[in-house]
Amino acid sequence: MIVLFTDFGLAGPYMGQMHGAILKEFPSARIVDLFADAPAHEDPRRSAYLLAAYVDEFPASTTFVCVVDPGVGGSRRALALEADGRWLVGPDNGLLAMAARRARAAAWWHITWRPERLSASFHGRDLFAPIAARIAAALPGTGIGPDGLVPISANDLVGRDWPDDLGEVIYIDHFGNAMTGLRAGTIPPKAILVLGGGQPVVRSRTFCDVPKGEAFWYENANGLAEIAVG
Amino acid sequence: MIVLFTDFGLAGPYMGQMHGAILKEFPSARIVDLFADAPAHEDPRRSAYLLAAYVDEFPASTTFVCVVDPGVGGSRRALALEADGRWLVGPDNGLLAMAARRARAAAWWHITWRPERLSASFHGRDLFAPIAARIAAALPGTGIGPDGLVPISANDLVGRDWPDDLGEVIYIDHFGNAMTGLRAGTIPPKAILVLGGGQPVVRSRTFCDVPKGEAFWYENANGLAEIAVG
Amino acid sequence: MIVLFTDFGLAGPYMGQMHGAILKEFPSARIVDLFADAPAHEDPRRSAYLLAAYVDEFPASTTFVCVVDPGVGGSRRALALEADGRWLVGPDNGLLAMAARRARAAAWWHITWRPERLSASFHGRDLFAPIAARIAAALPGTGIGPDGLVPISANDLVGRDWPDDLGEVIYIDHFGNAMTGLRAGTIPPKAILVLGGGQPVVRSRTFCDVPKGEAFWYENANGLAEIAVG
Repeated sequence: MIVLFTDFGLAGPYMGQMHGAILKEFPSARIVDLFADAPAHEDPRRSAYLLAAYVDEFPASTTFVCVVDPGVGGSRRALALEADGRWLVGPDNGLLAMAARRARAAAWWHITWRPERLSASFHGRDLFAPIAARIAAALPGTGIGPDGLVPISANDLVGRDWPDDLGEVIYIDHFGNAMTGLRAGTIPPKAILVLGGGQPVVRSRTFCDVPKGEAFWYENANGLAEIAVG
Repeated sequence: MIVLFTDFGLAGPYMGQMHGAILKEFPSARIVDLFADAPAHEDPRRSAYLLAAYVDEFPASTTFVCVVDPGVGGSRRALALEADGRWLVGPDNGLLAMAARRARAAAWWHITWRPERLSASFHGRDLFAPIAARIAAALPGTGIGPDGLVPISANDLVGRDWPDDLGEVIYIDHFGNAMTGLRAGTIPPKAILVLGGGQPVVRSRTFCDVPKGEAFWYENANGLAEIAVG
Repeated sequence: MIVLFTDFGLAGPYMGQMHGAILKEFPSARIVDLFADAPAHEDPRRSAYLLAAYVDEFPASTTFVCVVDPGVGGSRRALALEADGRWLVGPDNGLLAMAARRARAAAWWHITWRPERLSASFHGRDLFAPIAARIAAALPGTGIGPDGLVPISANDLVGRDWPDDLGEVIYIDHFGNAMTGLRAGTIPPKAILVLGGGQPVVRSRTFCDVPKGEAFWYENANGLAEIAVG
């Protein structure tokens, strides 16, 4: 399974072009669009905490193509990460950092493979999608190995100094619920979250337990503390 | 074929998580996103009439995963329905009721199967997607049968007292056209629909037959009376 | 691979119904949603230039289902085009014209095949999706051949008198960037584009080379001149 995590937007051609680029390399790939609207902002930090909350849900052989990449066309490196048997590819801007930290075993590679044609603005299609397809397909002779993936240390990667959890809203979903970068399991059961405006928010188990119109927080289905209104 | 009918929204991870949950159980499943924006409102009644207009279009072995479920985490039951050789799973809140009534032969089951891990807020991913995948794959030994699906009577299901057609707008599409819950075949050919504001709307066959800017109604491609402006 | 290029919108059932109609004819088809939000406006001219910029990216055996069809239900013909080994189907309103002109070898067919049931308003589902599926699957005995596809000349097709490039914005993407219908390769490297309001816009290679807040144009990843703000 190949999972896409991007900020390319639902509209327009970009997600479809990613599918096309993957299927060109690996015609029988099964592709899942996880996020096309990952938060971009000035840096990919929020996306890093968001991604990390979803990786575990997918089986061990899953390959993630992660592209929140405001520095595309600049000098940032392209990275591959093996984390507990799952593979992730993405730019060296911290996007993969939290997925690595939450893994029991993580190993990093510098992607030195280059396609015949690399556009300046769409490395998702030209670089990350095809290398992910090759990793997922484990095709022999595709340039993966010492010629395409070079092992590197995690010591100088962007994001290595970020906190384990992020006390910010990282994503607001279709229902208006606000996911934070805090894992609910790290918060004492009776803790009260305090919103930016100073409003205290208590914990509840589900929507059904809360009076209409009242804000609360709960552990969402991916383990994050999420703020909602009953 | 597995067809998704939900109110999860196009944005965000939920539809992708449904795909992932299905592919985990049934790696070669073909998945079609029919609606990710089914009307939710206070109850799933409009969605029930919408769903019923689309079921017939798909081949007999199709499995539908139907999740418009404001009561998730509460005590409502999980249901499976076999309707003319198609299967539908969803909550017992009326969502499947009209699909059953329009079928020549319908049989109901209570889904008693439970996954190892059931979140409080995302039964679509944790319960409905995997049971649908197992039904679609017809995997032996998956707990379906007397241990996972218990036959029940339709006598006490939500929606059994709803009307055969619903004289309301149930969905407004991308083009601004308003689908009603009325099957056009049940309306006399020369009938005039009267909108909420009292405006009468006459029938036309296609957009090409109507002056620019004039409202009309027609039988849409799924048999519903739909209001549009030429 | 079957690629969808439509103005059906991301929301609602239409793209899913296209998938269903394709899979009914060709159960193992791989389907890519390229555009669901192609520009419609009064005529499909902008969509024709947009489509032409994406065709080359897909492998030779790809079949494109192209539906921007304001005249559906009227008398316009249904066309099939073979362009450099790729197939495209769509209405005779110019939508396929630029894809044909950019091909080294192009041949046209009139689609005379008709499904058992043809709705007045959804030829995408009822006509174009199934004929594309049959072309892609190359099923014997499906009515393709002299009974379903009749060779025609390009001499009287809509769009034959359109310019090679279109000096207009044809699509504004998720990031707010404005694609033009001009191929960057046809513009002298130091040319300045002049926007509708008279503002001159210079060329840059990537976002990283431009001061924050300054408008520029560049060759996008599909060869079009695209206007963005750094």
